[in-house]
Amino acid sequence: MRITRRERFSAAHRLFRSDWDDEKNLEVFGKCSNPRWHGHNYVLYVTVEGSVNVDTGFVMNLKSLSHIIKERVIEKLDHKNINLEVDFMKDRLASTENLAIGIWEEIEGPIAEQGVRLHCVRLIETENNFVEYFGPQRDADL
Amino acid sequence: MRITRRERFSAAHRLFRSDWDDEKNLEVFGKCSNPRWHGHNYVLYVTVEGSVNVDTGFVMNLKSLSHIIKERVIEKLDHKNINLEVDFMKDRLASTENLAIGIWEEIEGPIAEQGVRLHCVRLIETENNFVEYFGPQRDADL
Amino acid sequence: MRITRRERFSAAHRLFRSDWDDEKNLEVFGKCSNPRWHGHNYVLYVTVEGSVNVDTGFVMNLKSLSHIIKERVIEKLDHKNINLEVDFMKDRLASTENLAIGIWEEIEGPIAEQGVRLHCVRLIETENNFVEYFGPQRDADL
Amino acid sequence: MRITRRERFSAAHRLFRSDWDDEKNLEVFGKCSNPRWHGHNYVLYVTVEGSVNVDTGFVMNLKSLSHIIKERVIEKLDHKNINLEVDFMKDRLASTENLAIGIWEEIEGPIAEQGVRLHCVRLIETENNFVEYFGPQRDADL
Amino acid sequence: MRITRRERFSAAHRLFRSDWDDEKNLEVFGKCSNPRWHGHNYVLYVTVEGSVNVDTGFVMNLKSLSHIIKERVIEKLDHKNINLEVDFMKDRLASTENLAIGIWEEIEGPIAEQGVRLHCVRLIETENNFVEYFGPQRDADL
Amino acid sequence: MRITRRERFSAAHRLFRSDWDDEKNLEVFGKCSNPRWHGHNYVLYVTVEGSVNVDTGFVMNLKSLSHIIKERVIEKLDHKNINLEVDFMKDRLASTENLAIGIWEEIEGPIAEQGVRLHCVRLIETENNFVEYFGPQRDADL
Repeated sequence: MRITRRERFSAAHRLFRSDWDDEKNLEVFGKCSNPRWHGHNYVLYVTVEGSVNVDTGFVMNLKSLSHIIKERVIEKLDHKNINLEVDFMKDRLASTENLAIGIWEEIEGPIAEQGVRLHCVRLIETENNFVEYFGPQRDADL
Repeated sequence: MRITRRERFSAAHRLFRSDWDDEKNLEVFGKCSNPRWHGHNYVLYVTVEGSVNVDTGFVMNLKSLSHIIKERVIEKLDHKNINLEVDFMKDRLASTENLAIGIWEEIEGPIAEQGVRLHCVRLIETENNFVEYFGPQRDADL
Repeated sequence: MRITRRERFSAAHRLFRSDWDDEKNLEVFGKCSNPRWHGHNYVLYVTVEGSVNVDTGFVMNLKSLSHIIKERVIEKLDHKNINLEVDFMKDRLASTENLAIGIWEEIEGPIAEQGVRLHCVRLIETENNFVEYFGPQRDADL
Repeated sequence: MRITRRERFSAAHRLFRSDWDDEKNLEVFGKCSNPRWHGHNYVLYVTVEGSVNVDTGFVMNLKSLSHIIKERVIEKLDHKNINLEVDFMKDRLASTENLAIGIWEEIEGPIAEQGVRLHCVRLIETENNFVEYFGPQRDADL
Repeated sequence: MRITRRERFSAAHRLFRSDWDDEKNLEVFGKCSNPRWHGHNYVLYVTVEGSVNVDTGFVMNLKSLSHIIKERVIEKLDHKNINLEVDFMKDRLASTENLAIGIWEEIEGPIAEQGVRLHCVRLIETENNFVEYFGPQRDADL
Repeated sequence: MRITRRERFSAAHRLFRSDWDDEKNLEVFGKCSNPRWHGHNYVLYVTVEGSVNVDTGFVMNLKSLSHIIKERVIEKLDHKNINLEVDFMKDRLASTENLAIGIWEEIEGPIAEQGVRLHCVRLIETENNFVEYFGPQRDADL
């Protein structure tokens, strides 16, 4: 059984590498490399997996799941600059893929402490683009 | 190949255990335990898996799938009280997880009779919360 | 200039008149008259109208608007029984129309105190049904 | 008869006044005043009004409408910083209200040249917040 | 008070004039003039206006409204070819605008018989394009 | 890690077999067999799987993915008749299932050339119906 919680945040970012010049950044990342930033309304779906608790009928209390996501992820990202202000994105290219990995690492531990397993971090950047991350183990299995 | 049919129902429910007092119910279930009920527009996605029939180009006729879901699930749940009026939820906590399991049990047989396999019951309670159930076998494999 | 704030609540209700018997209620209100209740995820859009404040660039601070709606409407309706527990719906048929009127009456005063005018209460009951109320004056003009 | 075209853009911005100190900006604009920016996926609905052309069955060719919006608005805003890079937002607080006014001024003329009247600019900042601007005449009538 | 009912239909159509050659049709209507048709999932919102009935709390019974729309519009349009099979579109260019006018004419009478006034026909062709028709009187007032 | 790109197309089609008479086609395919066609706004989600490139932070450049889908699929399907005009649907029943298989075959090679693996083609025909195809290998494993 899997349960999923949706949360949202609005943030600024840009795609670029400091070891590339502007021309190279523009060539690879296009308008997403704009030095003066742009931003998105990100939508985050966190899916956890576990068995149903006989006492509560829950895999996990959604209030607890929402609390973990808000404390570990939303407060750090909402109305922030992903490149400059988010500790877990330091030294990482601010792509949606890397952001999903960073979010996974932030919440995997606290979710495991609740006795369930983090299954998937789905991060929607625009209505046309999203990524899904299933953790380092799944990646290694490929 | 998987095909999915969406159906909807509106129902009342509450989360509570009769062997707990009101205080304990409130502590665990919060406002969802309100004794005078609340309700939701539930959205149900039923996914079945099978190979494509060469004659029809279908995994399964969606009219048949819709008919099974409506007869077995929607007619029993729509505009009903899940705690008091739904036979397959008797003696079960009216959580979204348990409701998904109940729906699975109602439709698995009739769907198997069509020569396809029920893959997933996804039940959306609010735009922020949903569950996915993949059957008792998948649960046992975890 | 108009600005709109969306808020949501989940509630139980039924359509019925105590001065009609069950048969008559069923005839007029159909399955919506189920004595054991059903419920919805209501979506509420509140639109206010005013000129743009030169200092802030706002018609009205959306945090204030959200606060008024939450305090006056959402706290009273969310996870409640509209027929039994909502003071401003007492002695009113719990139709979407009447609920929109009740919501208007709850928030019109506090919104006017902010120097803007309440323009519309849009209340969505299901993805197929919604109502829009523009206040008693507009109704009288028709 | 009214026709509406939807277009989208992603941009960074912040709400602040240079003649206020950081404390005052934070007090009025909250987290939206973050000096390092944040951003949104804005959704823009442009509605024009006119009679149906007997030859084409159109109020206005939607390709022309889309072209005007893209050239005058989307190219200037998409993947940009609204405060720093958008000519028509210079010396204007980057609120959604002011952005809607700026968009109106950019497209009103070119749309009028097509023989139809710009009726409304609706600008959606998040799923919970949007503004609608009906032009300076309508504002003056209030 | 206004209430709105949503209904849907899927249909094929093309934009073209038989008194123009293919080149001219292509120039004006672009790919929408493809002689072998294309199609859409149309979404129709019908809004009616009236006062709230004291007995029922309704402006109009939504079951009656849905019945009128289905009988007069959906049955004629759903899974049909708009150019070839829809009586009320005969001799009319199959544009979204003209389709909205045709729908208005089909349902205005039956809705008036219910004691309410048809206010608006909103017809959504794609997520980026829709039209709104408010009747011949409103058009004449412009 | 998986990334998904959404694209859309509007097309006409009908479900029928030329070796069946009209009566048999109507019996099996219902109104979807209308000889004069109907159509849909199809929504296509293409999901690819791979590891994150250290240089770019991308599984795959979404511009390249979008370009492949547009060139191989959207240009062939958008504003077309699926039964009559789409090369890769020749001699195939125009069901959503077969269309998903056809789309998979069109894009699998070009996507593999980018160093990633096509994971899923999800094709949404209406808000109530969609199919997901995971390739011939997955089908064989069932």
